[in-house]
Amino acid sequence: MRFLGKQVSVSVFGQSHSAGIGAVIEGLPAGFRVDEERLQGFLGRRAPGQGRFTTARKEADVPEFLSGMQDGYTCGAPICAVIRNGDTRSKDYDQFRQVPRPSHADYPAMVKYGEHYDIRGGGPFSGRLTAPICIAGGIALQMLEEKGVRVGAHIASISNQTDRRFDPLRVSAADFDTIAANGFPTLSKEAGEEMLAVIEEARKAEDSVGGTVEAAAIGLPAGLGGPLFEGLESALAAACFAIPAVKGVEFGDGFFSALLKGSQHNDLYAMNQGRVVTKTNHAGGLVGGMTTGMPLILRAAFKPTPSIGQAQQSVNLEEGCETQLTIKGRHDPCVVPRAVPVVEAVVALVLLDAMLGNAGKGTD
Amino acid sequence: MRFLGKQVSVSVFGQSHSAGIGAVIEGLPAGFRVDEERLQGFLGRRAPGQGRFTTARKEADVPEFLSGMQDGYTCGAPICAVIRNGDTRSKDYDQFRQVPRPSHADYPAMVKYGEHYDIRGGGPFSGRLTAPICIAGGIALQMLEEKGVRVGAHIASISNQTDRRFDPLRVSAADFDTIAANGFPTLSKEAGEEMLAVIEEARKAEDSVGGTVEAAAIGLPAGLGGPLFEGLESALAAACFAIPAVKGVEFGDGFFSALLKGSQHNDLYAMNQGRVVTKTNHAGGLVGGMTTGMPLILRAAFKPTPSIGQAQQSVNLEEGCETQLTIKGRHDPCVVPRAVPVVEAVVALVLLDAMLGNAGKGTD
Amino acid sequence: MRFLGKQVSVSVFGQSHSAGIGAVIEGLPAGFRVDEERLQGFLGRRAPGQGRFTTARKEADVPEFLSGMQDGYTCGAPICAVIRNGDTRSKDYDQFRQVPRPSHADYPAMVKYGEHYDIRGGGPFSGRLTAPICIAGGIALQMLEEKGVRVGAHIASISNQTDRRFDPLRVSAADFDTIAANGFPTLSKEAGEEMLAVIEEARKAEDSVGGTVEAAAIGLPAGLGGPLFEGLESALAAACFAIPAVKGVEFGDGFFSALLKGSQHNDLYAMNQGRVVTKTNHAGGLVGGMTTGMPLILRAAFKPTPSIGQAQQSVNLEEGCETQLTIKGRHDPCVVPRAVPVVEAVVALVLLDAMLGNAGKGTD
Amino acid sequence: MRFLGKQVSVSVFGQSHSAGIGAVIEGLPAGFRVDEERLQGFLGRRAPGQGRFTTARKEADVPEFLSGMQDGYTCGAPICAVIRNGDTRSKDYDQFRQVPRPSHADYPAMVKYGEHYDIRGGGPFSGRLTAPICIAGGIALQMLEEKGVRVGAHIASISNQTDRRFDPLRVSAADFDTIAANGFPTLSKEAGEEMLAVIEEARKAEDSVGGTVEAAAIGLPAGLGGPLFEGLESALAAACFAIPAVKGVEFGDGFFSALLKGSQHNDLYAMNQGRVVTKTNHAGGLVGGMTTGMPLILRAAFKPTPSIGQAQQSVNLEEGCETQLTIKGRHDPCVVPRAVPVVEAVVALVLLDAMLGNAGKGTD
Repeated sequence: MRFLGKQVSVSVFGQSHSAGIGAVIEGLPAGFRVDEERLQGFLGRRAPGQGRFTTARKEADVPEFLSGMQDGYTCGAPICAVIRNGDTRSKDYDQFRQVPRPSHADYPAMVKYGEHYDIRGGGPFSGRLTAPICIAGGIALQMLEEKGVRVGAHIASISNQTDRRFDPLRVSAADFDTIAANGFPTLSKEAGEEMLAVIEEARKAEDSVGGTVEAAAIGLPAGLGGPLFEGLESALAAACFAIPAVKGVEFGDGFFSALLKGSQHNDLYAMNQGRVVTKTNHAGGLVGGMTTGMPLILRAAFKPTPSIGQAQQSVNLEEGCETQLTIKGRHDPCVVPRAVPVVEAVVALVLLDAMLGNAGKGTD
Repeated sequence: MRFLGKQVSVSVFGQSHSAGIGAVIEGLPAGFRVDEERLQGFLGRRAPGQGRFTTARKEADVPEFLSGMQDGYTCGAPICAVIRNGDTRSKDYDQFRQVPRPSHADYPAMVKYGEHYDIRGGGPFSGRLTAPICIAGGIALQMLEEKGVRVGAHIASISNQTDRRFDPLRVSAADFDTIAANGFPTLSKEAGEEMLAVIEEARKAEDSVGGTVEAAAIGLPAGLGGPLFEGLESALAAACFAIPAVKGVEFGDGFFSALLKGSQHNDLYAMNQGRVVTKTNHAGGLVGGMTTGMPLILRAAFKPTPSIGQAQQSVNLEEGCETQLTIKGRHDPCVVPRAVPVVEAVVALVLLDAMLGNAGKGTD
Repeated sequence: MRFLGKQVSVSVFGQSHSAGIGAVIEGLPAGFRVDEERLQGFLGRRAPGQGRFTTARKEADVPEFLSGMQDGYTCGAPICAVIRNGDTRSKDYDQFRQVPRPSHADYPAMVKYGEHYDIRGGGPFSGRLTAPICIAGGIALQMLEEKGVRVGAHIASISNQTDRRFDPLRVSAADFDTIAANGFPTLSKEAGEEMLAVIEEARKAEDSVGGTVEAAAIGLPAGLGGPLFEGLESALAAACFAIPAVKGVEFGDGFFSALLKGSQHNDLYAMNQGRVVTKTNHAGGLVGGMTTGMPLILRAAFKPTPSIGQAQQSVNLEEGCETQLTIKGRHDPCVVPRAVPVVEAVVALVLLDAMLGNAGKGTD
Repeated sequence: MRFLGKQVSVSVFGQSHSAGIGAVIEGLPAGFRVDEERLQGFLGRRAPGQGRFTTARKEADVPEFLSGMQDGYTCGAPICAVIRNGDTRSKDYDQFRQVPRPSHADYPAMVKYGEHYDIRGGGPFSGRLTAPICIAGGIALQMLEEKGVRVGAHIASISNQTDRRFDPLRVSAADFDTIAANGFPTLSKEAGEEMLAVIEEARKAEDSVGGTVEAAAIGLPAGLGGPLFEGLESALAAACFAIPAVKGVEFGDGFFSALLKGSQHNDLYAMNQGRVVTKTNHAGGLVGGMTTGMPLILRAAFKPTPSIGQAQQSVNLEEGCETQLTIKGRHDPCVVPRAVPVVEAVVALVLLDAMLGNAGKGTD
């Protein structure tokens, strides 16, 4: 379950209900002061139990740093951060070995791993495993900030309720502050209210809803990335699809660009205070697999969470017959709000990796 | 420019106008008979100069196998295949060092590589470099077929003209044959005719158009892939985004799934002749980063090619001022038709890698 | 600090005096029952505080499995095992920031990591970090045994006292049992007694001694490994040199083979009960980077541990002048006895990785 | 057959008698002027057919650069260099499929790859494949020199004839020049003459001899490398063992250090013109897996080449019986002289990789 960048690697471990979860983070520079309070605040944005729109499972998600840190600074050795698993109700999951939940990992995981697969809580496929990703990503965000790079994200849509989009030319740290101030991570407070209503409606119906997250990165130099398989889109997309429930990723105009003509989509160059810029940013800051120096924009689509309360048809794997399944217990009607910092985390990991690999290279 | 799978790796080399381009392919099993004629046919689908809708540059793209093959069989050593570059007009590109083409790799590549960057023909960022990818992918397709896995793709849209989609439950090798028989790679011959008209119109206007490619893979076992960063979507998306001009990738319902409720999107399980199947396939055959055993469906969005004949604003990098640029010479008004086999190629590479890593594992 | 095999990876983390040390182990097959008692026994062979010949630091080295195991079986998710650090005396190490210990990692580590390097106990360079390697290697040994492969090692020499060597044609599990029964890991009990005397003598002189470890692996199929950089010697040597204090690695006749003629060194083939064997085994079971099916034999040379009680010349890095240094506190006069299981562990990791990558391939 | 550094990778391809052999080299900085004449001179040191002590096969080994170079400079894209195979006599090798040559790769390779293994000339296991390694390494040597790092090697012994060793404190570029001036690569011209006599004697007896190569690197900063599996010894040893016929690798005092006491082996620190140095260099410039800034010293042991003219016992794999084998045709009685630049090449690749990964880090 490794993020394997060229400079930075993150080995995530744990199952939803194992004794602990965590990550080993390698390749970070030594001597960086990690602001643990800010990191904890970042983890808090992903944590469950914050309000009416998330699961009832409550866990503090306070990581313990077993290694790699000394007196608050990275010491150069791999960082291992561990979160103990506390509040788990493993018995809820017994039945899914025989009767897999539709659109969950249960069935393919049992084919893959066999009878000793740890199905409790979704095992290693649980969204809970995004907590260690956020530890690594939260540190990466701090390191990027020191290099003048900021990453932020918001909910672009829940079901058919949409937030306004980032302005691809002018997105700024102030936008990220607005999102943070809003609590519910949208640019428009009103849009957020409507999304919350949609989520609440889904909860009442024992149903779930999907949505999209839009992320931006600003302050990047031009020339990060490279040709073909070295392209930054490849690395960013791979990292985003590592987040459970993501079904689509696009950059800049993305799928919409397939409807445009070259004369509409091309971003013309201009000079702005001695700096090369583009007059539009349909590309989302990425051309030829490389950053252009303009804001990097991407969107990820999240499917509705498959844990719904309604009775569903499934199969009994032992008996080889069809059966009905009703999933009990807590479940989020929408994972998108909690996914926002996770998207920031994986984007930050990829960008930090690219920045560290770019040391000494020319930038715009 | 490496595709670095867990079992298979492909090191692509070359610039658009270098002496040669090619690939070193490692990790393929020994003793496989490569059908070189079929491989050549596959490469022909990507090659330029086939008709009114592609660039005028004509090259046979016949690979020479320098190593790794003996008497038509893989011998276990790395395969090196080389295509000589012939018909190049390098002088066309001189001006772009000073005045980068909008939405081309010119500018970020010069920032990245400096003055010795080989800008001719787009250097390593050229679509021409997809030819070696197709050599590797074409062999992978043959190996997959021997394992009962088939991969096919078609143009899902050009601008706003759409083909009908693959049926996610019933897509079959017969569909792939239909696409092949149509010449222009669509399921619906009529849709293809309309797309050709759209492309021709763009050509006349010295403009370009984008589009989408849809790919399917059938015959896959369940359980390929894995959790988080080991997910098959990550590998597939990274490979698709390695194709020049791709701006979005989605699986199954993709971005549309963000609009659905869980009760609409969940794929209920059923038994079919003793085999676990799903009654719908919104997931596109991928759940929890793993195959479900149902057809795998993905779509990639291609931006309109930035090479257009119209005058465009750019900047003169040496003089630091804005200027006008008119790109002369040949250029495709649409890269999507030629991208279809490239999408098949990268999907095949990822799936072969997953299949080879799955040896001896349980499957459905 | 990763062992990065093709199938198996082990991310070791921790510093000598950090809160904990451990490893994340990925790529092991699911469904394997780990005998934790045997594993603990294996770790006990490496642990300090066993007798007169090792350091006085006492730690139980009982790993806690945070993930990857369920009911004693591997569940397919990465295994994270943690050992808490208890008995540490960090103040002993303060002075070495200014005055680095000769032939220790202190000086180059401070150059590499800067002022926030965790120098306590040797940081990540400490022999203590071989404990997590032994957790991973101990599991690998069990998995190999299930596949019919056994790995064992003994002390071949301490200073100029030598044990008899493994018989490269007939080394067997019985030899490994003999070594285990002897307590001190030698084939000849008498040789072991003499080695202990040499170590004790060094202790009294506040000095230290080096030695060599010889390892053997039996039951391997022919054909593991590959050409050039894929060779098994490369992987085995890299893993052995990862053990602190190793200064040389050789296979079969090793450096002695440089003195032989081809007619003396070549291992002639013969048939033995329908199986291809060699009549001698100068090659140590490895030809062309691949196993021959004969016993694999390697030796690793360990320098004398640099922690000695005698006053030594060093430099004061802050003042830029020469100075005297006397290292106080506990230190092993010889690390070789405790290194024996570590050599077994890294050899087992490499061989398991090769065996897992060989699934379905032909063997002799 | 990849050298996979953290920054630099080299994919070697080819079989001894395939159409061509070569390498794809990735990760080198753009804008470096490669001195092709010097590179050719370096390749000439490895090439066969230079005198009485090497094989009679004559090939110019002039690489063609298919990609990655423009006007003599690296352009940032992967370099592909190809050498065509000319003078091959493939029929010589037919018999070895049935009757494998003792101590050659024939038998394990056939087990590994099966019937389609390309046995001609030793396939991918041939020493001929070190030519592409030397192309990559020759470029690396030039890049290192620009960074103030020099690498050189000499024959330390052939059979029991020894050259004097590098002075581990004072080895200098002048020593490398002496070796080059001597033609036969030894420090002592007389020792070289005696070695040549030993080789000639072996040739007359249709036998072969082994030997050792000693390499040194000077001008390295302290702090390259890292703990455990990140250690520079691991990378260097893996690269050296990738050279066919290497059976042992040691650093500094190597195996001899196992005979020393700590008080004898420790390298005491001193100041020299404001620089931290050691008064001795038993460590060979490597402590804790990292460079100390002192000269790096390693030795590799080469077994006698197994191709000897004398009749030898082997087995007939098809008939499952023992038989006699006499190998006809040309063969080197000693590969060591030609291996000297190969050792330099792999050492240079590892050190360049470490230097590139060290950009911006502190050095002594």
